[in-house]
Amino acid sequence: MSPDYDPDNIFAKILRGEIPSHKVYEDDDCLVIMDVMPQADGHTLILPKAPSRNLLDADPAVLATMMPVIQKIARAAKTAFNADGVVFRQFNEAASGQTVFHLHFHVIPCVAGVRFKAHAATMEDADVLAENARKLIAAL
Amino acid sequence: MSPDYDPDNIFAKILRGEIPSHKVYEDDDCLVIMDVMPQADGHTLILPKAPSRNLLDADPAVLATMMPVIQKIARAAKTAFNADGVVFRQFNEAASGQTVFHLHFHVIPCVAGVRFKAHAATMEDADVLAENARKLIAAL
Repeated sequence: MSPDYDPDNIFAKILRGEIPSHKVYEDDDCLVIMDVMPQADGHTLILPKAPSRNLLDADPAVLATMMPVIQKIARAAKTAFNADGVVFRQFNEAASGQTVFHLHFHVIPCVAGVRFKAHAATMEDADVLAENARKLIAAL
Repeated sequence: MSPDYDPDNIFAKILRGEIPSHKVYEDDDCLVIMDVMPQADGHTLILPKAPSRNLLDADPAVLATMMPVIQKIARAAKTAFNADGVVFRQFNEAASGQTVFHLHFHVIPCVAGVRFKAHAATMEDADVLAENARKLIAAL
């Protein structure tokens, strides 16, 4: 584990079950949850369970396990939200826009002509997040 | 191969050596080149050699091989351009911003306080791209 990894970051607490989340998918290697400040309906976060600050210090073997899950979530997001496309993104260090220092990948369905909301800006209603999680689970 | 994959897209032509590129790295599975319309100095594209339109129709086994390379390139980009962070992104379908329909991942070093240029907007000088490729190769 990187000496720069803080085990009390919010995603570590979610992974330990210390604070709640809207869960979409879980396996031995990762947890997928709704982003509580979504840039569009259906915005999810894929979190590896192994601790790393971001892509730069992650275990390559862990990274390899993430991509097939990311693909499944991207396909489900396109279907569940009748989307025209999907954006996949990941930020490393504060200068890039990273706000929580546990590696996470964003998957965001997009509809033609509809602009994304700002990153990490506006909290969504819990009922909306729960309903969007249900839509994604149904499409998986 | 997806029926929606066009083998005459520009990245397929680069992979076949039919048109030139500024190469940073190559192995059996992928090619890494400079983006000719960079959003910041050191902006690279990671292209799997296997044909797929984007993340949605890609072979999961191919996707798994990409992440360790993406990590190496991200680390090299941070070092070579003395960057404060790195953005990793990938677009699926035109509505999301995808402009070439062969799967590719963007790795973009970023410096605190410096905004990215627009995506796929302004052609960079070939000499600058060649020099930036040299910097990345030296940092790999």
